[in-house]
Amino acid sequence: MPLAGPNGALPLPSFMEKRLFSTTPQVRSLNINNINPHVKTAKYAVRGELAIKSEQYKSQIASGKGGDLPFDSVIAANIGNPQQLDQKPLTFFRQVTSLLENPALLECQEVLEKEAGYQSDVFDRARTLLKDVKSVGAYSQSQGAPGIRQSVADFIQRRDGYPADKESIYLCAGASSGVNALMNVICASPNTGVLVPIPQYPLYTATLALLNAKCVPYYLNEENNWGTDLGGIRSALKKAQGEGIDVRAVVVINPGNPTGGSLPEQDINGILQMAAEEKLVVLADEVYQTNVFEGKFHSFKKGLRDLQKSAENKDGKFDDLELASLHSISKGMVGECGHRGGYYEMVGFDPEVVAQIYKFVSIMLCPPVIGQCLVETMVNPPREGSPSYPLYRQEYDGIFSSLRSRAQALYTAFQSMEGVSCQSPAGSMYLFPTIRLPAKAVAKAKEMGKGGDEYYCLRLLDRTGICIVPGSGFGQREGTLHFRTTFLAPGTEWVGRITEFHREFMEEFR
Amino acid sequence: MPLAGPNGALPLPSFMEKRLFSTTPQVRSLNINNINPHVKTAKYAVRGELAIKSEQYKSQIASGKGGDLPFDSVIAANIGNPQQLDQKPLTFFRQVTSLLENPALLECQEVLEKEAGYQSDVFDRARTLLKDVKSVGAYSQSQGAPGIRQSVADFIQRRDGYPADKESIYLCAGASSGVNALMNVICASPNTGVLVPIPQYPLYTATLALLNAKCVPYYLNEENNWGTDLGGIRSALKKAQGEGIDVRAVVVINPGNPTGGSLPEQDINGILQMAAEEKLVVLADEVYQTNVFEGKFHSFKKGLRDLQKSAENKDGKFDDLELASLHSISKGMVGECGHRGGYYEMVGFDPEVVAQIYKFVSIMLCPPVIGQCLVETMVNPPREGSPSYPLYRQEYDGIFSSLRSRAQALYTAFQSMEGVSCQSPAGSMYLFPTIRLPAKAVAKAKEMGKGGDEYYCLRLLDRTGICIVPGSGFGQREGTLHFRTTFLAPGTEWVGRITEFHREFMEEFR
Repeated sequence: MPLAGPNGALPLPSFMEKRLFSTTPQVRSLNINNINPHVKTAKYAVRGELAIKSEQYKSQIASGKGGDLPFDSVIAANIGNPQQLDQKPLTFFRQVTSLLENPALLECQEVLEKEAGYQSDVFDRARTLLKDVKSVGAYSQSQGAPGIRQSVADFIQRRDGYPADKESIYLCAGASSGVNALMNVICASPNTGVLVPIPQYPLYTATLALLNAKCVPYYLNEENNWGTDLGGIRSALKKAQGEGIDVRAVVVINPGNPTGGSLPEQDINGILQMAAEEKLVVLADEVYQTNVFEGKFHSFKKGLRDLQKSAENKDGKFDDLELASLHSISKGMVGECGHRGGYYEMVGFDPEVVAQIYKFVSIMLCPPVIGQCLVETMVNPPREGSPSYPLYRQEYDGIFSSLRSRAQALYTAFQSMEGVSCQSPAGSMYLFPTIRLPAKAVAKAKEMGKGGDEYYCLRLLDRTGICIVPGSGFGQREGTLHFRTTFLAPGTEWVGRITEFHREFMEEFR
Repeated sequence: MPLAGPNGALPLPSFMEKRLFSTTPQVRSLNINNINPHVKTAKYAVRGELAIKSEQYKSQIASGKGGDLPFDSVIAANIGNPQQLDQKPLTFFRQVTSLLENPALLECQEVLEKEAGYQSDVFDRARTLLKDVKSVGAYSQSQGAPGIRQSVADFIQRRDGYPADKESIYLCAGASSGVNALMNVICASPNTGVLVPIPQYPLYTATLALLNAKCVPYYLNEENNWGTDLGGIRSALKKAQGEGIDVRAVVVINPGNPTGGSLPEQDINGILQMAAEEKLVVLADEVYQTNVFEGKFHSFKKGLRDLQKSAENKDGKFDDLELASLHSISKGMVGECGHRGGYYEMVGFDPEVVAQIYKFVSIMLCPPVIGQCLVETMVNPPREGSPSYPLYRQEYDGIFSSLRSRAQALYTAFQSMEGVSCQSPAGSMYLFPTIRLPAKAVAKAKEMGKGGDEYYCLRLLDRTGICIVPGSGFGQREGTLHFRTTFLAPGTEWVGRITEFHREFMEEFR
């Protein structure tokens, strides 16, 4: 795990030590001072130092050398990785992909129905998908297989009540890859700015750093369930424009990562209004659209179409608003993040710009085809009345309610913890509580060259084996401290580990 | 298929026309003149205008409206997409992935052995891989699953006779994704240069264009079976350095794409020598390492280790030579390009630089896990004596000899064609013949604003349905014309279509 430099806190793998303490002079082409400075600047804490240390603890326990550790298992609450934390894949989905991987099994329908619980609609779906992609081992069109894009368009139409066009849908290797393509085209110069919510999933700041463009931060309203504060966005925009930054787009993550919020309709309308007035592209990261525990999910696409239809649009001001909305197979009840699948729909974009996006994605050839097929099963799951429906429904509802109850258990625990306050879990897979640490703890952290939140998370990991991410990895208001934790880990025993650690920690530094 | 702009030759999809001829004024944030200029500059002809037109012909035929066309099928000889062209996936590989997709099938061993030809080693492999990745739907380590990286290291050791370290192996979503990560770190400024062979697979020039870095072209020696010409590389390097370009790396594609060449050991040694003297990173694109029809494949890694062991290395000049070698599941007899899997091994890199590469790849989370598993089956296929070996061997050899005979048939056809000369097929999946066109044809092309090779390829597509790529898409010496064709399409009927078209074309412009 090679993230630590020679002065880093982590032990280096042996092959690195050898090189570092080699007696030959530095004669390489590349060193830390002459590589791409924008890669150096980019930060991505979700898989940073803590994650690496937790992997080391995990290996230590797995190899039977964990006897000295004060815990017997590592809980990876740092990343939204459902199936690593025992969430079972949806049966219909994986039955279909097993047939796609080995189409010879299509000839064994009878025996698979009898022995392995396959239903007839599994075979139908696999045959339809194979007709579209020919083989999951063949490149598809760079934009994604046309039949799958049609299924996505049909899904959007059912969800929003407005038609969607398969030509404006691009399949991608997870939403991250879609964001990467869109940002690459948008970011024209070091002077290009993109409005990004704070706190945010660090993909956005990392991508802007890599592209040497400007992140224009706007703060979410923690007190109001992490909602958007239009006044705040507008003043962030004006300030940036005053500094000569050419702000082109606004990112919205709904439901929120890391916040766990879920935006009401009026917040979405407000952002669309502002984007239309200010000529901003809206990038709507909606990968958690099925992880909604309070109220319901409102898509930006529906919001836009509603506005376009409304009286407010008399002067056509919403007609050319550019919206890219992203969805993914990684989250929700699907949780197939290892398969790297997703899509984005672009509406209102200039076709010449779309052509450049097409060229950009074609350089990487195509998204993983089996991931594309899982996008299809996600947007077109078994319908009521079909043979696979009852089990699908049961599994889906089971995962949903289990996630909701774990979110609730964690939320309740946080409410009982001294100096911790947390918004109620409304959506996504995360909670992002505020922590107020004793001054002595903050001083100790500072002594170690760390932020208070970093120090807290490091101590939590060392003491309990639970890996969470400091708020600084996502951005937080000056003077506040947070952490992000998923609520994916099974059971609730680990929640007890957190509360106990927290009590001890507070005692120690009181 | 949205690649053509409003003045392009292709008909626009309806949703675009509507937008283009909309009466509302341009009020969008993004247009062709204000997006990232480096995306605009990047060229990627392999999936460009001709490919899009061929897809349109294909849809036309599929929808029963192909009656007016002078051909009844489209042959996609423009991309190396084996399974789209009827190459069957290797049975063992896909049996394993079917179990990985649906681990419930592990409980049906007896019935799958009896009814579907699964052997016991298929189940063993699937169990081992699942132990490593837990679920193919879970994110792995960003560098790739550790057990799979160990298999890659073992493979490299068997291939080269020198050990490899799993920590220096990074799995990736196809070699393209690996090249992208490496180039992102290497390219530090608009002044960074990378030596790229001409002709080349356009991923390299496209990536350098996107990163706003300099491509420093060096010409391959067509007359000498597309070998490397060290003198030529050195003078390209000196010329670039004279212009103040900071040349950091040299790309070598072996076996060659688009050339179909295969480098002898001395060419590889020569490049390593030069790279050591000039402190250049060597990027060895070895994705066609099993597609070798003349002589044998020599890896850069073995070449480097041989040199490091040799007397020539007394002063340690090869000790810190930085080499990244790439391999892929997309090519060879595996042909699983739709699964997006590959790896790169980095040796000699500064660990601080490796840490930055790790961070870069972690932003995109991880390569597709099922693709990682196919990397494992590729590097660790059934061994002699194991139950799946006989069928694996038979399929592997069958694909190999069929590719070789198709390459030979195409080569023979080219030899019979007036004005065409071609090097004998030594490796990879392509031939890249020179064509000498009549002056009238070149004049006609010029009249249409096209190069002679583009015009030839366009006419070939319109007349025969065969899609190939003009040499200009890969680069060629001033004043020469080429095209690249794969030899993947089944049968040889289509070869006859080419020779007939060529005769007519030459007659028309004589």
